[in-house]
Amino acid sequence: MSGQGSFSHLDVEGRVQMVDVSAKPVTRRVAEASCRVLLSAPTLIRLANLPKGDAVAVARLAGIQGAKRTADLVPLAHPLPLDQVEVEVLPVADGVQVRSRVVVNGRTGAEMEALTACATAALALYDMVKAVEREAVITDLRLESKSGGQLGSYRRGG
Amino acid sequence: MSGQGSFSHLDVEGRVQMVDVSAKPVTRRVAEASCRVLLSAPTLIRLANLPKGDAVAVARLAGIQGAKRTADLVPLAHPLPLDQVEVEVLPVADGVQVRSRVVVNGRTGAEMEALTACATAALALYDMVKAVEREAVITDLRLESKSGGQLGSYRRGG
Amino acid sequence: MSGQGSFSHLDVEGRVQMVDVSAKPVTRRVAEASCRVLLSAPTLIRLANLPKGDAVAVARLAGIQGAKRTADLVPLAHPLPLDQVEVEVLPVADGVQVRSRVVVNGRTGAEMEALTACATAALALYDMVKAVEREAVITDLRLESKSGGQLGSYRRGG
Amino acid sequence: MSGQGSFSHLDVEGRVQMVDVSAKPVTRRVAEASCRVLLSAPTLIRLANLPKGDAVAVARLAGIQGAKRTADLVPLAHPLPLDQVEVEVLPVADGVQVRSRVVVNGRTGAEMEALTACATAALALYDMVKAVEREAVITDLRLESKSGGQLGSYRRGG
Amino acid sequence: MSGQGSFSHLDVEGRVQMVDVSAKPVTRRVAEASCRVLLSAPTLIRLANLPKGDAVAVARLAGIQGAKRTADLVPLAHPLPLDQVEVEVLPVADGVQVRSRVVVNGRTGAEMEALTACATAALALYDMVKAVEREAVITDLRLESKSGGQLGSYRRGG
Amino acid sequence: MSGQGSFSHLDVEGRVQMVDVSAKPVTRRVAEASCRVLLSAPTLIRLANLPKGDAVAVARLAGIQGAKRTADLVPLAHPLPLDQVEVEVLPVADGVQVRSRVVVNGRTGAEMEALTACATAALALYDMVKAVEREAVITDLRLESKSGGQLGSYRRGG
Repeated sequence: MSGQGSFSHLDVEGRVQMVDVSAKPVTRRVAEASCRVLLSAPTLIRLANLPKGDAVAVARLAGIQGAKRTADLVPLAHPLPLDQVEVEVLPVADGVQVRSRVVVNGRTGAEMEALTACATAALALYDMVKAVEREAVITDLRLESKSGGQLGSYRRGG
Repeated sequence: MSGQGSFSHLDVEGRVQMVDVSAKPVTRRVAEASCRVLLSAPTLIRLANLPKGDAVAVARLAGIQGAKRTADLVPLAHPLPLDQVEVEVLPVADGVQVRSRVVVNGRTGAEMEALTACATAALALYDMVKAVEREAVITDLRLESKSGGQLGSYRRGG
Repeated sequence: MSGQGSFSHLDVEGRVQMVDVSAKPVTRRVAEASCRVLLSAPTLIRLANLPKGDAVAVARLAGIQGAKRTADLVPLAHPLPLDQVEVEVLPVADGVQVRSRVVVNGRTGAEMEALTACATAALALYDMVKAVEREAVITDLRLESKSGGQLGSYRRGG
Repeated sequence: MSGQGSFSHLDVEGRVQMVDVSAKPVTRRVAEASCRVLLSAPTLIRLANLPKGDAVAVARLAGIQGAKRTADLVPLAHPLPLDQVEVEVLPVADGVQVRSRVVVNGRTGAEMEALTACATAALALYDMVKAVEREAVITDLRLESKSGGQLGSYRRGG
Repeated sequence: MSGQGSFSHLDVEGRVQMVDVSAKPVTRRVAEASCRVLLSAPTLIRLANLPKGDAVAVARLAGIQGAKRTADLVPLAHPLPLDQVEVEVLPVADGVQVRSRVVVNGRTGAEMEALTACATAALALYDMVKAVEREAVITDLRLESKSGGQLGSYRRGG
Repeated sequence: MSGQGSFSHLDVEGRVQMVDVSAKPVTRRVAEASCRVLLSAPTLIRLANLPKGDAVAVARLAGIQGAKRTADLVPLAHPLPLDQVEVEVLPVADGVQVRSRVVVNGRTGAEMEALTACATAALALYDMVKAVEREAVITDLRLESKSGGQLGSYRRGG
């Protein structure tokens, strides 16, 4: 997959451009992304022992709102009327996993929205734990799958 | 460092709160963060051979503008009148490194702004290479250092 | 009407979600809302005697712009490409009434946009009278009607 | 208190203006506001029986983020570097009460921020219950107190 | 062309309104605009001798992002899901010319987006040269052409 | 004045940077800008005969709100806590003149805010007359004066 095709956002002279998608059909597109926030064991235990789950709700909400802000943040992204944004925050062995799923009926896919949702949720988590653990690291932010575009579906390999 | 202190954004019942910083003095604070965007060798060669450096300029600019949007994205972050945002994008062996430095005269530090700058620059880079390499991964997003607050300076260990 | 159905924004575990509307058809939808800003008689007389109507124009404009910001403000609201926003500001016996009407061709209705238009217009009015009357109260912010969705039309009872 | 003073945002010809606060000293200012969302008994029971408190967390967060957006929404409001935003959502006999408290070191007070926090939290609550109860009404949005400015403190009477 | 038709954004009483476009068909629309930033000869020579073209990249990007912000800035503009924004920055005898082209599938045209793209790019250029030349002037910001709407195409005369 | 100094936003390699103003003192700074919207005589007569002055109020308000958005639009601009924004819209022989004045207590001046206020007000005016006169041109957008910074005051020559 790597190294194929061309940089769609750069013209032949290397200048940035916003790709013209006006002639593409509107199709239902789905994109999924994920990342992890690596946390120490003591921080994980503290998080698990909080009496309420607000920290997770904040992170999920930040992710949903971040997805809606994608075209403001990513300069060459097209504004998209998102039909759904789902963000999950799950405990894993070495921290917390964030997973997002974005659905849109549009002329271009929602990969950047799915990635931005994960990044924003992870930043919100970092913000909430940083007084306890500054060493938290956000890692493995990546596209998991996309479908619905003209180029066929994609699912990240194992 | 891990596991010390308390979750400043969560009260004793686990409910989120925006910390009251109104009684803190205004001091000059600096925060630095970094991350990497992992790219395949063919993509790196293609990037290096572009006739102009617009891709790097776009990423740097996205990072600067992202830092200014931090309080919109991170729900419990305080709005800060940033005095400087610096974003560097450098080629490394396995991809591209993003480094940010944010300076503010404020009542709270700019860690989240430095991290958001890196995240946004990295998302902009992903957006520009995604037509060529969907497998690009954003990784190791972390605080490198902070100084100027009341708790003393911090620098990430090796 | 009350107590029927389910909380569409909360899943079975009570977690928030942004509803998936991607499979709904695009239909023309209209929503109307209203509220009042309660003002004392002296303030009303002063407002009426102003040589120009800029205060009303500011409120109407704030309402129109607020409607366009709904998805930024209401975390689980979908971004919608609004086709029209109308805001009226009318003197009534005990203050000022704000009425809004929002039209959209979309997969979900514009109730939140109509309510946000009224709330923002009322906040702008409060801001303009607050030096004269801090006791002004914004009240009875409510949906008046909606039509065009799959669940049939709704009009608030007397 | 009513009917005293002048409309600070309107000049002698009734034209809107953004007040010049540049010569005022920076002081610590606090403003508190409140409103209620009127809900039917069945909806209140349903809300209370939700397994998690995410609905309340969403409303509180929407209020905090709304406060930060005040200068975008209220045309003549000054941008303020907020030091704290607190939003409480409490069950009451006829619905839900929202209370906000905003602290800022600034040249002008944070009344509009406190009111906007309540309005936004209430709109988020409406959004979450609207599938169950469209008749929900947001009411009694008002300033409860302010302190720290040059005009002395204010507390709403009984 | 001048003086024909009616002020679509003003009703018969001169009050502003956001035009209802909900009954218009979705068509592909293109709008082009331009402006110039007048610069002195020494500043032009300095710009031309810069080792990298980042100044131009910043201006182009600011224009693209400005176009996406149009409905936030122009109070009565409709939010539009832009399909493409192109911004060119070209040296001319007396300064720099900015040209934009915006494409959208929508119920209303993208003239305001094309003009806002040029204005924002020109402001970004001014910002970058202002330490050298405060007398820079942004001039001749105008619509060059539009097509795709129901009223037929338009191209500015000589 | 032209051709002196250096491009403060570009480093020695021509890369963009956001200038570090953290060591500058906070001083009261004022900037004024202006532009004109050229209109045909028939359009000017129509504007003058409108029963209410909402068109002017909309333009003034758009200018005030645009000034508050400057750091979002101009990539390398610092976010500033504006103390006042004044926008005037005046009829002149060949169209409409827009004048702005921005006051801030800050570490850097408000030139970009004053220019952005004029640009946004002019775009709002164009939007309101475009159904009548597409040939309207925004011209002579320029800084009129600035004061309060360390480099002394500036006033544009005749």
